[in-house]
Amino acid sequence: MASYTVAPLANLIDQFERLPGIGHKSAQRLAFHVLGMTKEQAESFAKAIVDAHEKIHHCAICCNLTDEKLCPICRDPKRDPSLICVVEDSRDVLALERTNEYRGTYHVLHGAISPLQDIGPEDLCIKELLARVQKGGVQEVIMATNPTVEGEATAMYLSKLIKPLGVKVTRLAYGIPVGGDLEYADEVTLSRAFAGRSEL
Amino acid sequence: MASYTVAPLANLIDQFERLPGIGHKSAQRLAFHVLGMTKEQAESFAKAIVDAHEKIHHCAICCNLTDEKLCPICRDPKRDPSLICVVEDSRDVLALERTNEYRGTYHVLHGAISPLQDIGPEDLCIKELLARVQKGGVQEVIMATNPTVEGEATAMYLSKLIKPLGVKVTRLAYGIPVGGDLEYADEVTLSRAFAGRSEL
Repeated sequence: MASYTVAPLANLIDQFERLPGIGHKSAQRLAFHVLGMTKEQAESFAKAIVDAHEKIHHCAICCNLTDEKLCPICRDPKRDPSLICVVEDSRDVLALERTNEYRGTYHVLHGAISPLQDIGPEDLCIKELLARVQKGGVQEVIMATNPTVEGEATAMYLSKLIKPLGVKVTRLAYGIPVGGDLEYADEVTLSRAFAGRSEL
Repeated sequence: MASYTVAPLANLIDQFERLPGIGHKSAQRLAFHVLGMTKEQAESFAKAIVDAHEKIHHCAICCNLTDEKLCPICRDPKRDPSLICVVEDSRDVLALERTNEYRGTYHVLHGAISPLQDIGPEDLCIKELLARVQKGGVQEVIMATNPTVEGEATAMYLSKLIKPLGVKVTRLAYGIPVGGDLEYADEVTLSRAFAGRSEL
């Protein structure tokens, strides 16, 4: 078939195929879908890609993604800036915001320390976090990095840097997930759930 | 969360979510992937969308998608123009070409007659096909529409139009798929396989 390729179509399929979780068949379907769009739809799709890429950068305070100087959470006067919840990724902010519980601010590291993947503390937004804590007014830093080896290591590393500054450092609770089944919970989670049990 | 939306990001997620088979979570992952691209990668992705949409149109002969006046198959002097294989969709051409067997040309209808979806003969590239046949030099028209009610109806409709012009009209063989299991073949396929049996 190589000899019968239509270059712009092949290129579009190739572009879709580079996206995560999109195989050749899906890429083909997406490309044909784009061909079926109106001119305006295709152009606004293309514009959305370029726009998002051009306009979005890190918030000057919390390093979350934003299209203004400060992200909407750091701009909000109702959020408590003395509480900082440290997460690995912007998507984690979205997940935590869905709880509608937390009223403090965030700090997005954009990754976790991982020697295997050659990601060191200098590759993450750690100096911005330390600057915020050193500036004063922070009462508690909540570590909400992922419960993985890398996330744990990052939380430990940060707590060693922040505690000496006289600020309380906490970690999200471990335990059995709500709605989960004890039978399918792993040993580590169960032993953490035992250790963290509370009186009824 | 609506109050904390970053407009260009929300727009990009929304654009991905409109694609077929992409839910909200996948759209979010794809949008964040785009943000992680280099400027050049994002721009060439956006350009591929606009380019494909602008440059691709129907081949002047067979209505297949192409970026030139004629599609690569109609341009190829080694393909036999006296044989026309009629398919519903450009993707069907790709599938048939993968067999590396067929040396004739194609005609892409861009759909099938479907009264339920309000698609009539005038919505398909049928008059272009009739013009090709009327021009002469065509020996056989092979119906390769899908083995569905709509595909069958379209094949029947076309054969009634083309046969009076003195051109042979054939249909792809029905039968058990190679590598399939008799046990799982449906009754209609099996009875067609009986009717179409050949001597060994």
